[in-house]
Amino acid sequence: MPAFVIGVGKTRFGPSGHDIPYLAQEAMAEALTDAGIGVADLGALIVANFLGGPNEHQLHLNSVVAGLMPGVRLPSWRVEAACASGAAAIHQAVALLGTYDPILVIGVERLSGLPGAVLTRNIGMAGDVVLDQAQGLNFPASYALVAQRHMQRYGTTTRDFELVSLKNHANAQLNPKAHFHLKRVTQADIDAGATVASPLRLFDCCPVSDGAAAAVISATASDGRSVPVLGSAIRSDAISLSQREDHTTFPAAREAAEDAYRKAGISSADVSFAEVHDCFTIAEIVAMEDLGLAEPGYATGMVRDGQTAIGGSVPINPSGGLKAGGHAIGATGVGQVYEAVTQLRGEAGQRQVAGAEIAVTHNVGGVGGTCAVHVLGRPS
Amino acid sequence: MPAFVIGVGKTRFGPSGHDIPYLAQEAMAEALTDAGIGVADLGALIVANFLGGPNEHQLHLNSVVAGLMPGVRLPSWRVEAACASGAAAIHQAVALLGTYDPILVIGVERLSGLPGAVLTRNIGMAGDVVLDQAQGLNFPASYALVAQRHMQRYGTTTRDFELVSLKNHANAQLNPKAHFHLKRVTQADIDAGATVASPLRLFDCCPVSDGAAAAVISATASDGRSVPVLGSAIRSDAISLSQREDHTTFPAAREAAEDAYRKAGISSADVSFAEVHDCFTIAEIVAMEDLGLAEPGYATGMVRDGQTAIGGSVPINPSGGLKAGGHAIGATGVGQVYEAVTQLRGEAGQRQVAGAEIAVTHNVGGVGGTCAVHVLGRPS
Repeated sequence: MPAFVIGVGKTRFGPSGHDIPYLAQEAMAEALTDAGIGVADLGALIVANFLGGPNEHQLHLNSVVAGLMPGVRLPSWRVEAACASGAAAIHQAVALLGTYDPILVIGVERLSGLPGAVLTRNIGMAGDVVLDQAQGLNFPASYALVAQRHMQRYGTTTRDFELVSLKNHANAQLNPKAHFHLKRVTQADIDAGATVASPLRLFDCCPVSDGAAAAVISATASDGRSVPVLGSAIRSDAISLSQREDHTTFPAAREAAEDAYRKAGISSADVSFAEVHDCFTIAEIVAMEDLGLAEPGYATGMVRDGQTAIGGSVPINPSGGLKAGGHAIGATGVGQVYEAVTQLRGEAGQRQVAGAEIAVTHNVGGVGGTCAVHVLGRPS
Repeated sequence: MPAFVIGVGKTRFGPSGHDIPYLAQEAMAEALTDAGIGVADLGALIVANFLGGPNEHQLHLNSVVAGLMPGVRLPSWRVEAACASGAAAIHQAVALLGTYDPILVIGVERLSGLPGAVLTRNIGMAGDVVLDQAQGLNFPASYALVAQRHMQRYGTTTRDFELVSLKNHANAQLNPKAHFHLKRVTQADIDAGATVASPLRLFDCCPVSDGAAAAVISATASDGRSVPVLGSAIRSDAISLSQREDHTTFPAAREAAEDAYRKAGISSADVSFAEVHDCFTIAEIVAMEDLGLAEPGYATGMVRDGQTAIGGSVPINPSGGLKAGGHAIGATGVGQVYEAVTQLRGEAGQRQVAGAEIAVTHNVGGVGGTCAVHVLGRPS
């Protein structure tokens, strides 16, 4: 069945001072307005969120959001797949269009205001409680292992990580909804960054952000701004790095990409730009290779040559990515679709990728335990 | 698209001493064996769970379960809609058969071993953090308000509640997988029960249970034991009783039932028996009325006349229900389907409902914030 994104909305990602219902309402209202419909027109609602329970003492978020639509009793539920919750919800919506249409997807998360140690522990719930958490293998440490192995096998350097960070921070300055839109990050800032988990330093790590993003998915294009979803795929793998053979790649991402490309009838050579899950700078490099945008070990060459900048051959994360655009966990995968739609409509302003025809979004839960890939095309 | 339950599995509900992966594995293995397939035959996996994060420090459960299937990278995610998580997952599976087939649904929860106050607080996350939790309106208190209003409007009595409890405990003694299978509950036990939230007393409240239940859903019947899903529906409503007009009924349940019956081409008069969400005895009475099995205010007459016993005109909760069968929250909605399938196959042993043709399952999240209803038919 064909699928289109007929409306999108997004709060700014970053510390907000707002609670989950407020954030959800803002993104939802923008998406419905963009789609030109009201809540009474909706067929179903899917809410994506990761840490509402542990952080906010609020589960059952689909019912919380239902309270924002008095008298409209929609089919709804919450989906969670750690940091891939948002793309999992988009995938469900695309796959459910034969039953419900249109479907509103809202990704929402509030992460600010908690002590850092509590938040790190809670985010750790995306890893195995026995195999990872109890060993102190939190997420910076897990991605540090990925970075070390990638460096050892392919000669990747910390300079490559710095180049990813500088690019994404530069892009975020062009994105008014980015977490670090107003922050100029220089080499001196990067040089001054403390080590978080060697070799990863402060500016290799994404921030944690409050935020929400929403998308309205329908089998029918509503106007010339409706963006077709050409392919949607998701795969899961064992949760812990200790259960995997190769730490330089995420097989679930590779297989999701292959499936999404097959559904879209494209190859990786057709991709105009990609929004990828750069929770750490090394993750952007791994993502490029898992998406087939570079052969294994060759993403760094593209980074060094500037090919992944907005004006390059394959721009990566024109929004600023998670690294500088922000990571509102349950909202991130939906926010990637917001960026893809905005770019494909030619409405991305200063960060517009020229002539974008095919966009790919790549959203990862944990350290590759869940990966979802979407392929979107230009409105026709 | 047609949908069939081609295999089911269920652990015993109750204190287990096991962790989530162990419970999930046991139910999954039984369901796959029952369906006569292996993990490599699956198209997708949906995991239902409510409190894995707050209770167990484990989110991203789809990836935990993926670790039980090495090398098989399925499309998967977790669904959560409070206590209706299990039925929400079944609903998704039915609606997704055009994309994935067969789909394994696993509902799993571990609730034992936590201090009671912590567990009560965590279960409260199914209610609004501001409107309910901060006011001390936990779930026994919320259902006590429902009970008080039902008594005031319809003359319902605490004796009606006792009759529901006695019936469900008697049924559980016939169900080897019930939480209170080995416990005989008499009028003297009920009389000795402390008040929990007036008018609800100890034996009006379901226990909290560890447990898992699994179902394999396919568009193709695999053999003469495959049970057709004739209708599947879910609706959500505002989360807090303070946002609702009428506390004697859950509109989301009524609308889900109407939708499920319409899809199945049946009326409530066609229902042979029902597994309903009796987290408190009053909830069974409200469920019967919301499902149209009794006119509002008239369910109690059926209870008093014994019509809801296994040998009655419309048996309710032959499994023992949540009340005595147990409530392993994220597993409960899947466990209801397990019971419906077992009964419709004629394999329910001592608790068999004679001549069962049409079964209804009714699963509620919070105090009616999410309600899902399924209609299942006899294998042909």
